[in-house]
Amino acid sequence: MARAMEKTLHDLQTPALVIESEGLDANLHSMAQALPGDRLRPHVKAHKCTELARRQRKLGHRGFTCATVREMVGMAEAGLGDDLLLANEALDLRRLGELDARVTVAVDSEETLDAALHGGVGEVVIDVNVGLPRCGCPPEEAGRLADAARARKLRVRGVMGYEGHAMLVADEDDRRRLTDEAMERLLAAHADVGGDLVSAGGTGTYAINRAATEIQAGSYALMDTAYAKLELPFRSSLFVLATVISVSADYAVADCGLKSLGMDHGDPLVEGARVWFCSDEHITFAPEARVRVGDRIRVWPAHIDPTIAYHEALYLAHGDELVDRWAVDLRGW
Amino acid sequence: MARAMEKTLHDLQTPALVIESEGLDANLHSMAQALPGDRLRPHVKAHKCTELARRQRKLGHRGFTCATVREMVGMAEAGLGDDLLLANEALDLRRLGELDARVTVAVDSEETLDAALHGGVGEVVIDVNVGLPRCGCPPEEAGRLADAARARKLRVRGVMGYEGHAMLVADEDDRRRLTDEAMERLLAAHADVGGDLVSAGGTGTYAINRAATEIQAGSYALMDTAYAKLELPFRSSLFVLATVISVSADYAVADCGLKSLGMDHGDPLVEGARVWFCSDEHITFAPEARVRVGDRIRVWPAHIDPTIAYHEALYLAHGDELVDRWAVDLRGW
Repeated sequence: MARAMEKTLHDLQTPALVIESEGLDANLHSMAQALPGDRLRPHVKAHKCTELARRQRKLGHRGFTCATVREMVGMAEAGLGDDLLLANEALDLRRLGELDARVTVAVDSEETLDAALHGGVGEVVIDVNVGLPRCGCPPEEAGRLADAARARKLRVRGVMGYEGHAMLVADEDDRRRLTDEAMERLLAAHADVGGDLVSAGGTGTYAINRAATEIQAGSYALMDTAYAKLELPFRSSLFVLATVISVSADYAVADCGLKSLGMDHGDPLVEGARVWFCSDEHITFAPEARVRVGDRIRVWPAHIDPTIAYHEALYLAHGDELVDRWAVDLRGW
Repeated sequence: MARAMEKTLHDLQTPALVIESEGLDANLHSMAQALPGDRLRPHVKAHKCTELARRQRKLGHRGFTCATVREMVGMAEAGLGDDLLLANEALDLRRLGELDARVTVAVDSEETLDAALHGGVGEVVIDVNVGLPRCGCPPEEAGRLADAARARKLRVRGVMGYEGHAMLVADEDDRRRLTDEAMERLLAAHADVGGDLVSAGGTGTYAINRAATEIQAGSYALMDTAYAKLELPFRSSLFVLATVISVSADYAVADCGLKSLGMDHGDPLVEGARVWFCSDEHITFAPEARVRVGDRIRVWPAHIDPTIAYHEALYLAHGDELVDRWAVDLRGW
């Protein structure tokens, strides 16, 4: 629940991270309709919030994707451990073996197989490089790695391969082509590996990736200005509420900066204003209409994942009214 | 103290933020020699760590600069409240009035004067715009604002003005010229305002700003790749320790990404490698020499302030040996 003193947006100390409740609901429902139940394995790295994951669970998605060991542990402790996939390589998995949860981890090398074994993890997916230069083994090595896993008595559930290089490509035809090429590689690997899972995809490709048995989307729930450029049926529903603290002749300054915004995708947006630059605790912007010291503004982040990771809480708002406060409880590692 | 299980860098769970103890000590001593005692008012926004501030205090700096109300509260609660300056405008100062500390806040408008009054704050500095388009009143309005403060029975300690637009200018002559011009404006305002304090400066201008009675530097203690480009007598002493989790033919990937690095100044550096890109929890880099899965690498952030704000702790290392673990206890707002 919202704290007793905080009834409306006006009561919030700023900067504060706010979810537009109706937008979130609409996004969750749209996706649950497009990819019902286990067709979606929501990625919690985007929001790092077990309360939000609980909403996704209620709509029928039982499995979740995580990027860190801490996210896995937090999800299990929140009772959301039906089927957790660590879609990332890690070498110290000792915190996972004891969890009251179904735990599967991605592996792409002998070393990560050994890490699964030493961590007491029983199930793996073979992570395949489908074109993004990051983790994943070459497709042609996936079968051999699956054999090596089985030789260690690990259960191989299938393959995963993240087409991240396609995710934010603006032209849908290009995005589709890149996705199809990536999934050709993944399916070739899957033919050698076996298992039920072909896990891939994200918010940018959820509708065009036809090869994956499950999609690992996360950003769709809240969106950001980068994803908003694609034509997707999801609304931008997360902003940083900030207070105007200083007004000059041709610009104004609000109390939201580099420590409340992920900046790798560039400056955030402020409606009706041109953003000049951000400093540690400031955003300098040129508003079209006059603003006054004390006004509240909405700052729309360019990339939600590293934005949310800076904050302790997400405030859920219905219009100006606060309806809940959710801890960002999956931060750290 | 370091946790019982963590004796060396090798024991740390990654990503982890590590301070090279000797570098920190050297930096703190160099600065204390250049600007002894109250000539330096260390800015805690850079490190957000009261244990590190305590080291600065021990070297003779009694006053500190803060950027947020939370930093002010945390410093007071840590017993470091001899003379705290909130060098930033804020409208809700109610948490400051009750602190067991000497509290001074920056003001640049009638509204922020009222906020000081309503927050129970007794002392202010007039924040003057010296050329950076951010907070601060025009120099010619500073005297009037000081009168307005005194009419409200607030004590006016002097002026502050941050020459942030000069701070990272590579050419020292240009940096000096911009600083001199900025300080001309600040001294003109000071003539109208009165008071003992002319507070300004930062790590990039600490040695060339001759007008300020005190310098608000913070980054000098740990440095980053942006400040390392200036010719300053401070060593880079903060890195993110990361583990190589995947190795491919011409690149490798480690577990340090957008959620452990401030990215507004661009990609971090990895010694002996070219950084390709960062993702949420990954850094993809091309190493000159072969690396193996499980190797540890040092990732040097481009901007320490928003980097540290992502982390719960700073590990202090002497060579490979861990000598302490400091909480990053001034995060949030």
